[in-house]
Amino acid sequence: MDLAEQYRAYIACLNAREWDALGHYVDDRAQHNGKPLGLVGYRAMLENDVRTIPDLRFNIEVLVAEPPHVAARLRFDCSPRGEFLGLQTHGERITFCENVFYTFANGKIVQVWSIIDKAAVEAALGR
Amino acid sequence: MDLAEQYRAYIACLNAREWDALGHYVDDRAQHNGKPLGLVGYRAMLENDVRTIPDLRFNIEVLVAEPPHVAARLRFDCSPRGEFLGLQTHGERITFCENVFYTFANGKIVQVWSIIDKAAVEAALGR
Repeated sequence: MDLAEQYRAYIACLNAREWDALGHYVDDRAQHNGKPLGLVGYRAMLENDVRTIPDLRFNIEVLVAEPPHVAARLRFDCSPRGEFLGLQTHGERITFCENVFYTFANGKIVQVWSIIDKAAVEAALGR
Repeated sequence: MDLAEQYRAYIACLNAREWDALGHYVDDRAQHNGKPLGLVGYRAMLENDVRTIPDLRFNIEVLVAEPPHVAARLRFDCSPRGEFLGLQTHGERITFCENVFYTFANGKIVQVWSIIDKAAVEAALGR
């Protein structure tokens, strides 16, 4: 399987909010930043993200694939409402990036190590 | 040229503080997070990092190479003294990661997009 292609399909799935299809891309044993979320917890995390950020859209800026890993730099241009990264937000439109590493097994994400640019978010919010 | 091998040699150069060899790995046009540092500015940035964090050591946790890109998740276990990421530090030993993307041209780094896990640093410092 072409991991880059599979990853792009995963991102399209997120942007379409097709949560019922998430199991095509995320494994039942998926971990996120060391937390054993599983598919159910992973979906709950994404649904919560979209509740806080209704206009959340994942834009791939850099994609590096070397099996079993995919690394992506994602760019967001969105308007969080409520608590985001421990900061109170009120619908301000902000731009920031996430640098994230995925490990795949049998074409599905089993591990994620994500860092969001909190300093950029703070700067955008004027903190 | 094997980019993963070249990248490992770059990291060994940093850990050995062999600043005079930096030009083997970093291009004269190098940019870091959008700033046009060049080799001179890049070296100054690293020398400043090491002044603030004398025990700084770069540990590669994940390495993903697909020309012209290398992506790395780096882990640090070190003791900053002074201002670090806008936070005052006093030699506390902390552990945190950096997720970073490099673009290479002719075997040298021309662009870097780095995000350090500031939330982890804040948590480690008890902020």
